[in-house]
Amino acid sequence: MSHHTYRVTEIVGTSPEGVDQAIRNGIDRASATLRELDWFEVTQIRGHLEDGRIAHVQVGLKVGFRLDE
Amino acid sequence: MSHHTYRVTEIVGTSPEGVDQAIRNGIDRASATLRELDWFEVTQIRGHLEDGRIAHVQVGLKVGFRLDE
Amino acid sequence: MSHHTYRVTEIVGTSPEGVDQAIRNGIDRASATLRELDWFEVTQIRGHLEDGRIAHVQVGLKVGFRLDE
Amino acid sequence: MSHHTYRVTEIVGTSPEGVDQAIRNGIDRASATLRELDWFEVTQIRGHLEDGRIAHVQVGLKVGFRLDE
Amino acid sequence: MSHHTYRVTEIVGTSPEGVDQAIRNGIDRASATLRELDWFEVTQIRGHLEDGRIAHVQVGLKVGFRLDE
Amino acid sequence: MSHHTYRVTEIVGTSPEGVDQAIRNGIDRASATLRELDWFEVTQIRGHLEDGRIAHVQVGLKVGFRLDE
Amino acid sequence: MSHHTYRVTEIVGTSPEGVDQAIRNGIDRASATLRELDWFEVTQIRGHLEDGRIAHVQVGLKVGFRLDE
Amino acid sequence: MSHHTYRVTEIVGTSPEGVDQAIRNGIDRASATLRELDWFEVTQIRGHLEDGRIAHVQVGLKVGFRLDE
Amino acid sequence: MSHHTYRVTEIVGTSPEGVDQAIRNGIDRASATLRELDWFEVTQIRGHLEDGRIAHVQVGLKVGFRLDE
Amino acid sequence: MSHHTYRVTEIVGTSPEGVDQAIRNGIDRASATLRELDWFEVTQIRGHLEDGRIAHVQVGLKVGFRLDE
Amino acid sequence: MSHHTYRVTEIVGTSPEGVDQAIRNGIDRASATLRELDWFEVTQIRGHLEDGRIAHVQVGLKVGFRLDE
Amino acid sequence: MSHHTYRVTEIVGTSPEGVDQAIRNGIDRASATLRELDWFEVTQIRGHLEDGRIAHVQVGLKVGFRLDE
Repeated sequence: MSHHTYRVTEIVGTSPEGVDQAIRNGIDRASATLRELDWFEVTQIRGHLEDGRIAHVQVGLKVGFRLDE
Repeated sequence: MSHHTYRVTEIVGTSPEGVDQAIRNGIDRASATLRELDWFEVTQIRGHLEDGRIAHVQVGLKVGFRLDE
Repeated sequence: MSHHTYRVTEIVGTSPEGVDQAIRNGIDRASATLRELDWFEVTQIRGHLEDGRIAHVQVGLKVGFRLDE
Repeated sequence: MSHHTYRVTEIVGTSPEGVDQAIRNGIDRASATLRELDWFEVTQIRGHLEDGRIAHVQVGLKVGFRLDE
Repeated sequence: MSHHTYRVTEIVGTSPEGVDQAIRNGIDRASATLRELDWFEVTQIRGHLEDGRIAHVQVGLKVGFRLDE
Repeated sequence: MSHHTYRVTEIVGTSPEGVDQAIRNGIDRASATLRELDWFEVTQIRGHLEDGRIAHVQVGLKVGFRLDE
Repeated sequence: MSHHTYRVTEIVGTSPEGVDQAIRNGIDRASATLRELDWFEVTQIRGHLEDGRIAHVQVGLKVGFRLDE
Repeated sequence: MSHHTYRVTEIVGTSPEGVDQAIRNGIDRASATLRELDWFEVTQIRGHLEDGRIAHVQVGLKVGFRLDE
Repeated sequence: MSHHTYRVTEIVGTSPEGVDQAIRNGIDRASATLRELDWFEVTQIRGHLEDGRIAHVQVGLKVGFRLDE
Repeated sequence: MSHHTYRVTEIVGTSPEGVDQAIRNGIDRASATLRELDWFEVTQIRGHLEDGRIAHVQVGLKVGFRLDE
Repeated sequence: MSHHTYRVTEIVGTSPEGVDQAIRNGIDRASATLRELDWFEVTQIRGHLEDGRIAHVQVGLKVGFRLDE
Repeated sequence: MSHHTYRVTEIVGTSPEGVDQAIRNGIDRASATLRELDWFEVTQIRGHLEDGRIAHVQVGLKVGFRLDE
């Protein structure tokens, strides 16, 4: 077939360590239930603070995956 | 586990009454099928007009909920 | 005829009471001079303060209406 | 019932032919699994290039559909 | 005179056929009542769906025209 | 003096009741420490959910006030 | 009456001299046909170049004016 | 080598026919001087009007291509 | 010390003369109370109209300054 | 009390090391003078280059903290 | 030939005097190396502060020019 | 001379490791052909996924450099 359709799902990955690990945690969780993941795009970077320190970095992600024909 | 992943779903809540009720109607419907709802964010406020009056207010909402590990 | 064209006019409705009433006041005024109003979209919510209180809420609205063929 | 709630799903329709066909391909795929499709909105138009030519146009779409009560 | 002022009006052109025809339909309707049309700019591309198919493509357009001195 | 300078401070007002009350709560708190409040502008509307219900609406506000000469 | 409605019209003022004069030219032209002008807002600053020099600065303006009750 | 760097150039393709042809014309011209074109992204759709008709559609494009190592 | 932190404050400078003077008036007022001002960024250009003329240009400014270690 | 108000301050954290360290440096400096820090949000990521290398990464941050009642 | 392609280059013009002169300085420098300059668009207005005064205004500009066939 | 003009070029740096390394890779490649690099700004963070894992992080960068007089 000459074309595909993709679906884009939005998630928020989190990590106490930093931005890259929050992205990886989010992608890991998404790949547990979705197949044919193709790309991601960061939509926002936020975080939760406790006692003047970063408790969790929260990275918004759009994740695209190919739908079956 | 030291971190969670959240999913964000986008809905449009509607109401003939106004903005707050449209938000509540959308959240009520979302909570009928989704557990662990955590936050929402208004993305747009629109409405449908009939005979020069507001028939329905339509409020776009992103709703975040925690995924199971 | 198989298609229509719509015009979009931009107004600011105001109210000392709140957001919903400001929207209704703006739509009421628009419907006094325009026919075939079809939809609205909120573009911004601002307000004027006097003596530390809200004197008027000001809601920016795009209002769409169908043009005659 | 006096109000409905809608869900908005995000997809990317593709086509080697052009923008309109990519939209139609995306909507066709969405309608294969979703009922009560109501509107769409184009979020972006991109494309993949090979040998200096357009291999596929990729059109991002938000698609809204009515949820059952 | 060494300068002109332009007015920008916002319309929505529609078509069951596609994006280009919706733009043309909107411009045709605008040119029926406005003279000295100079440029247009697409602000959004949306559409209405019926029975899983595109009933109408709706293209938001800002249309600029020169005001008489 | 022929001109003033204004400062803009950003706050988040909250309320379990709805958008208008969250705006009023934020403005009330700002007016407790700032004089010459002049206008506000809503930057975002979010909320916190608990047990599938709205616990608090959170309204982001930019609040402008006139600086002393 | 306790509230007013405003209309917002969009124009482009131009000038070979610069940004401020383009704004003034646009406002002058608007005030020739509209009463009760209240505020303006710059939406964009562009210009036309000829022979490597600025022929005209073009300033997009939204102009708000109070509607009669 | 385990990674590439891409450059993004911005062009405006034009056509009297429509959006798809304007994109193709822009890509054709870009591929005359650039190798390894990889993707494009539409940044805006505008057009020039003459005698109440579309003289040219103008499509802003960001075009990405791989740089040599 | 190998790094600094900066604070960004938002003000609105005004002037009956024009954009440049409104920026200068805002910066002058900010420098009366803040030390180590480093940069500014224009966030919006608006103005107040009276009797069909510009009474004041209002320029929104973000002003960055270095915090003491 | 059933509601809180939060204030949002904007800072720029910097670091020669990278994005995560710049965020931490900014938050550390903010927590030296502000209590009850609750969340942050990245507004932009920039950097200063010297001799073709990154001298400092600069991360814009909005930091929210709870105001006393 | 019935159509042209344009390239858009991004520059930052600067001036100790103000916005208009910074635009002119940037255009002058661009016209020293590029032919067929056609239009510009202001993308941002920033500035550098020294001793509480404006050292340079910096105006971001997109400059469009026609490519040879 | 009392002022400089800067050019802004847009690139995409990539890395299998993470965001900071993708920025560094992009800057390294840019500095191989451009002199007087002055600043960068992140425009987007995306990535390519393979087998449910991040194959490459892709960071869009605007890079500014000073033009010779």
